[in-house]
Amino acid sequence: MNVLQQTMERIEELDQEMMEKARERVDSLIKPPHSLGKLEELAVQLSGISGVLYPEFDRKAIIVMAADHGVYEEGISSNPQEVTYAQTMFIAKGITGVGVLAKTAGAEVVTVDIGVKGDFPNDAGVIGRKIRQGAGNIATGPAMTIEEAIRSLETGIAIAEAEIQKGANLLGTGEMGIGNTTPSTAILSVLGNIPSEEITGKGAGVGSGGISHKAQVIKKAIETNRPDKDNAIDVLAKVGGLEIGGMAGVMIGAAANRVPVVLDGYISTIAALIAVSIEPKVKHYLIASHASAEPGGKKASELLGIQPVLHMEMCLGEGSGAALAFPLVDAACRIMKEMATFSEVGLKI
Amino acid sequence: MNVLQQTMERIEELDQEMMEKARERVDSLIKPPHSLGKLEELAVQLSGISGVLYPEFDRKAIIVMAADHGVYEEGISSNPQEVTYAQTMFIAKGITGVGVLAKTAGAEVVTVDIGVKGDFPNDAGVIGRKIRQGAGNIATGPAMTIEEAIRSLETGIAIAEAEIQKGANLLGTGEMGIGNTTPSTAILSVLGNIPSEEITGKGAGVGSGGISHKAQVIKKAIETNRPDKDNAIDVLAKVGGLEIGGMAGVMIGAAANRVPVVLDGYISTIAALIAVSIEPKVKHYLIASHASAEPGGKKASELLGIQPVLHMEMCLGEGSGAALAFPLVDAACRIMKEMATFSEVGLKI
Repeated sequence: MNVLQQTMERIEELDQEMMEKARERVDSLIKPPHSLGKLEELAVQLSGISGVLYPEFDRKAIIVMAADHGVYEEGISSNPQEVTYAQTMFIAKGITGVGVLAKTAGAEVVTVDIGVKGDFPNDAGVIGRKIRQGAGNIATGPAMTIEEAIRSLETGIAIAEAEIQKGANLLGTGEMGIGNTTPSTAILSVLGNIPSEEITGKGAGVGSGGISHKAQVIKKAIETNRPDKDNAIDVLAKVGGLEIGGMAGVMIGAAANRVPVVLDGYISTIAALIAVSIEPKVKHYLIASHASAEPGGKKASELLGIQPVLHMEMCLGEGSGAALAFPLVDAACRIMKEMATFSEVGLKI
Repeated sequence: MNVLQQTMERIEELDQEMMEKARERVDSLIKPPHSLGKLEELAVQLSGISGVLYPEFDRKAIIVMAADHGVYEEGISSNPQEVTYAQTMFIAKGITGVGVLAKTAGAEVVTVDIGVKGDFPNDAGVIGRKIRQGAGNIATGPAMTIEEAIRSLETGIAIAEAEIQKGANLLGTGEMGIGNTTPSTAILSVLGNIPSEEITGKGAGVGSGGISHKAQVIKKAIETNRPDKDNAIDVLAKVGGLEIGGMAGVMIGAAANRVPVVLDGYISTIAALIAVSIEPKVKHYLIASHASAEPGGKKASELLGIQPVLHMEMCLGEGSGAALAFPLVDAACRIMKEMATFSEVGLKI
């Protein structure tokens, strides 16, 4: 717990003084008050995170955490489990959705094997941080031990810090893991105290038993494991997944280094719920991107208290939605710096 | 009516064959079917518009139409009417919201005086196409004559065609006009058959009589002018505005040249309703950007049948939301072209 504990202790509140200056600046720009809506809020948040009135985020990286799920054997997905391994290879090659969208946004993609079944060649471009060959089947036992859950968080912290060390100043989270809407919905069901039937969706393709079977599997996972909803690490270990822990760790690590993190869709938002449950201050460093097409997505965003801005009906994962939102971060920075003020033009609207 | 009629006759249906090819291509990319949601739909639409499987939109321009409104004298706005003139100057200088956001998106801004009260210096960077010194007060008479309404549409066509001639291959619409949520809401009330009280909002700042007074002014404008809801040019002339006609003209001109147009918020969407009422085929060339914070915005998007994707609570106008959506167009083009296909990687998800 040492690294996790120490990292959490380094997380500070946002720079309130700088946020006040930023709000003053935003209100002085030649436009009706608040007319740039969430772009203004984002600009103020980014000043609060960075401690700088005119931050720039010119080194963007999306960290994609990949892992498998033992619950796959319950028939909750229509996709072959091997897709996790194959698609992780392709993500590392830059030829999938996130690769293309990241390039469009001028961002790098960092692909991490935190628990994929099967081992990657050394030259695959996948960073090897495998904790185990996939999470356990949550319908019959825990996803992982408490120690493994902490390791997944600390792996995320280490990866985030390594990227920040290399110069990254804006991170995005992404994931690959066939079956991972099942543990994600289990986590949401526990943390939000919501019956699984209300929030279970088809994910990237539901198994032949349909959504009702998937909801039953989730229910069974919770009954079997009895996670303690007031202990997010326990929830992560019992009904979560390695990539979910990894992403939560990225958020904690980024927050400790005052680096903003753009969430992707459903799975990222669930990881954010874990991170914020562990350390509430993490929330201030998070930026939502797109509203997932998954039914639990809306509930997860509400529970987290950060509303996504892009309504694209996307459900790809990989960090694709985060990449799509990066230009909004640039836009927020530039309105702060480049728009004229009323006093500069000698006018008051 | 000659130019308008001739331009309308040039508007073709989208290239269905190319759209089928584009849909096939999208479905062959390494991702679950439809998982990129509206980005996929946008990619297919762009292929249908351009007639090319891999279109590129590297010359983007936002056309900002500026005009004043005689209905200002009814006290419907809290902003000085002179702001239209002043802010139009600043837009042309590139120091307002749209200027900064367009630059961020690699787009040009083209500022057009189609009916601002007061004349601009020749070196202001404002294209002078003034039809009259502001629209008439719609509470007491028509906004303009039928001839002027047609001229506003034809001015938009001419401006769009000039930009396309110069190389622009993606247009956005924007506007500046203190008081213009009032005629916009009047148009929506007529075309959508919706009582003005249900759709009137504060705009960029409502006058001292509040929203209920503004709704009453709109109601009076409709009763006074009795626009024919089945004749969009009549509606535009009687309760519209010069910049609204100008933007509708831009859409018609762009469609005739197979160039897509990204709408901004409320006023743009109202202009789109006019354009589509005049010629329904225009609709296929339109792309929505952000959901306006104005209460009529949602109704206008529903009536148009094109849903915005950015939920930023913005209400600045100027084309700022269109600029913010330009990167989504680039993203749609790049997924089509750059993502690998299942057959390329020898896999089927």
